[in-house]
Amino acid sequence: MSIENISQHKSFGGWHKQYKHKSDVLNSDMRSAIYLPPCAAEGVDVPVLYWLSGLTCTDENFMQKAGAHRVAAELGIAIVAPDTSPRGEAVADSPDYDLGQGAGFYLNATEAPWNRHYRMYDYILNELPEIIQNAFPVNNARSISGHSMGGHGALTIAYKNPGLFKSVSAFSPITNPSECPWGEKAFSAYLGKEKKEWLNYDACALISSGGVAIPTLIDQGLGDEFLSNQLKPEALLSAADKAGISLELRTHEGYDHSYYFIATFIEEHLRFHAVHLKSNDS
Amino acid sequence: MSIENISQHKSFGGWHKQYKHKSDVLNSDMRSAIYLPPCAAEGVDVPVLYWLSGLTCTDENFMQKAGAHRVAAELGIAIVAPDTSPRGEAVADSPDYDLGQGAGFYLNATEAPWNRHYRMYDYILNELPEIIQNAFPVNNARSISGHSMGGHGALTIAYKNPGLFKSVSAFSPITNPSECPWGEKAFSAYLGKEKKEWLNYDACALISSGGVAIPTLIDQGLGDEFLSNQLKPEALLSAADKAGISLELRTHEGYDHSYYFIATFIEEHLRFHAVHLKSNDS
Repeated sequence: MSIENISQHKSFGGWHKQYKHKSDVLNSDMRSAIYLPPCAAEGVDVPVLYWLSGLTCTDENFMQKAGAHRVAAELGIAIVAPDTSPRGEAVADSPDYDLGQGAGFYLNATEAPWNRHYRMYDYILNELPEIIQNAFPVNNARSISGHSMGGHGALTIAYKNPGLFKSVSAFSPITNPSECPWGEKAFSAYLGKEKKEWLNYDACALISSGGVAIPTLIDQGLGDEFLSNQLKPEALLSAADKAGISLELRTHEGYDHSYYFIATFIEEHLRFHAVHLKSNDS
Repeated sequence: MSIENISQHKSFGGWHKQYKHKSDVLNSDMRSAIYLPPCAAEGVDVPVLYWLSGLTCTDENFMQKAGAHRVAAELGIAIVAPDTSPRGEAVADSPDYDLGQGAGFYLNATEAPWNRHYRMYDYILNELPEIIQNAFPVNNARSISGHSMGGHGALTIAYKNPGLFKSVSAFSPITNPSECPWGEKAFSAYLGKEKKEWLNYDACALISSGGVAIPTLIDQGLGDEFLSNQLKPEALLSAADKAGISLELRTHEGYDHSYYFIATFIEEHLRFHAVHLKSNDS
């Protein structure tokens, strides 16, 4: 599979690079970015943290605004940030920011017209890691993190595939999309009206339905304008409690839904993932 | 003078805030941003670093992309980032990215139509600091820094007013605008054809014409696409050498003109300024 480099910038001794490639899964061209720490240029195969962004974002928001390169360089971790959906004239869209392009919700759509392109779940889980493995000096250890819609993506992908990920973290995730306006709108379009299909992509339902054992760290700002209506961290805590799963969910006075919140705590997430990415169990 | 808060985000325990205010100097509304470190909420008057951005930027680029809040929070320094020019329908403009709105070049224009609004030199030197002093818990210590066109602004404003600034730094500054395409285009529009007028806003000329004694740190990437044509750091070194002034200009293999370069080295700039901002000489 060929990938085309479209930009590169030296950053903290390593390199931030953007790539374009054809995605068979998404039936579309796709853009993705990687940060490679300095040791990756010295023959070291590095572990990978996959970062999933939120509504309206591309591969650029996290790389430009999170301030993550400094610590990734120090820890020797690569970060891969894909776009949040397929894009282009051939790809179904809606005029709304929370449905269609930029709003893929990290699931495999089953309903027309979305099912022709919107298969971000398979893309993130299988196709993208294969591309990354083939193109860059990375090893098999991977973790996953994300923000808002991307926090939902990280939690659900990790909880459905705990053996594949060393750890998962999220900032301000949509924890219970089956029961919030963003999720109800996207899931009914992508997955249809049958609500039991939605539960396959709902972190709360996944926790409730099986013993998910994967190290999890979640940060949530208490000044977040979407907290009570869309994000519902208390639903996740309650589901974890009922399932007897321990889960670290930290709340932070005054912080909102922006990248300033992510930048403030990303160092702790990277250090959390590094411990698990570098442990010897496989 | 009243200022209107238009956004605020908690960041590293402090606050990033955007303000709109009427500028008498610019004869226009103006937008500016401030980062206030945590100690500013605890009754401490903090020193201020003024940051001047480059062509096409607003008050947002540095605040979102430089990753500066973490270290400013630790050091107890406020950072003020103004827009790069007045804006709006009444403000003269050109279709080019390097002239007019977003390209004020931190000078006082003398030529019509620019002289009605483009007085960024007076705004940065006098009006903005007065507004900041009145509205926020800051002390009198100030330093100045910037990138590209903003590096030119920082160096020239500091070198013309060494007693007012504790220190100056720049990333990839336009050091010799009288002798490069960006500067020749902007200066002939804003200041007229008389080249001797340009030298008042040329860091190389200012260094050559008088003994400027102010601590200076400059970083320049060697992979910068504008290095030889527009930025000319060797001209500044040569001028400093002839004037017998010592000046730290560091070059960095592989780094380009982007914010990834700034993010990589901003911590060292903040620590450099902190030493001078917190020294007891006044």
